[in-house]
Amino acid sequence: MTTTATNQLNDVEIATVGSLIDACRREPATAETVWSATVRWKGGFASEATVRDFDPIASDEPAGLGGTDTAPNPVEQLLAALGNCLAVGYAANATAAGIELTGLRIDLDGDLNLETFLGLDDGHAGYDAIRVRVHVESDAAPEKIDALHHKVVASSPVGHTLTRAIPVEFALS
Amino acid sequence: MTTTATNQLNDVEIATVGSLIDACRREPATAETVWSATVRWKGGFASEATVRDFDPIASDEPAGLGGTDTAPNPVEQLLAALGNCLAVGYAANATAAGIELTGLRIDLDGDLNLETFLGLDDGHAGYDAIRVRVHVESDAAPEKIDALHHKVVASSPVGHTLTRAIPVEFALS
Repeated sequence: MTTTATNQLNDVEIATVGSLIDACRREPATAETVWSATVRWKGGFASEATVRDFDPIASDEPAGLGGTDTAPNPVEQLLAALGNCLAVGYAANATAAGIELTGLRIDLDGDLNLETFLGLDDGHAGYDAIRVRVHVESDAAPEKIDALHHKVVASSPVGHTLTRAIPVEFALS
Repeated sequence: MTTTATNQLNDVEIATVGSLIDACRREPATAETVWSATVRWKGGFASEATVRDFDPIASDEPAGLGGTDTAPNPVEQLLAALGNCLAVGYAANATAAGIELTGLRIDLDGDLNLETFLGLDDGHAGYDAIRVRVHVESDAAPEKIDALHHKVVASSPVGHTLTRAIPVEFALS
């Protein structure tokens, strides 16, 4: 996480990101990406999500919800995805701005009423609100960190996916 | 995944879910839940999300995006969370309807334009569209599976979080 002679800051490969930006400028279709995952049910409330060749992301529910509590549940995984996305955004935008980060922690929580999931209501089944608190360690001036924060929030793929209504097609095949 | 004398179907503890539903009927505040995660940046585009006492959910970006490609990236994790949520919904609602599932696989993909994330645009940074294809193995009649599918989609916490605009508070502390 230090500036080195190899043009790295925050362990981010500035040249790689710069090349991608140049490629997207030259050929806008380069920016159009498709991402995938495959989920397999393991019985009960346990399942596994496979992404490319990585170890699967295990999922289960707490015992109080009828699961066997062997892994984070899906709504916790959603918060994890949001926090991990903000971490990438911080690293990328801090590096682009020449800000050295010495540490970054992001605490997330969200309120979810189970009534719709449990069949007691037919309203909103998802999060009613999500709260994110970002803790940045850096010697940069507070106003620079504030500007960085706003830039990250304004350009977060997972953040925007949650704060906007996304068309999702649910097909049964 | 078979019906047993212990009142299990699909390895789901029907009694536990029933007790939770009864508790929420008696005391609606029981349905109000809060979920949390903490993300720690590991340098570069790598980070880890910790949920309760479970092993962290690792995150990275592919080399082409400037990462070291050690784990699924955050937008892939989001698809994983959605698929894992639908698996729970299928198991829960199939069990409630007396439908035995012998297998369940869910394929997910989504289109995401990187221009906003890369700072080339200030529009939508998130998924433009997500597609889910559910493959159910069951001896139940197709119309029962179709009704099950609609019930799952109508009550999915992660599904609803994505298809509706959720208020997210991004605080810098």
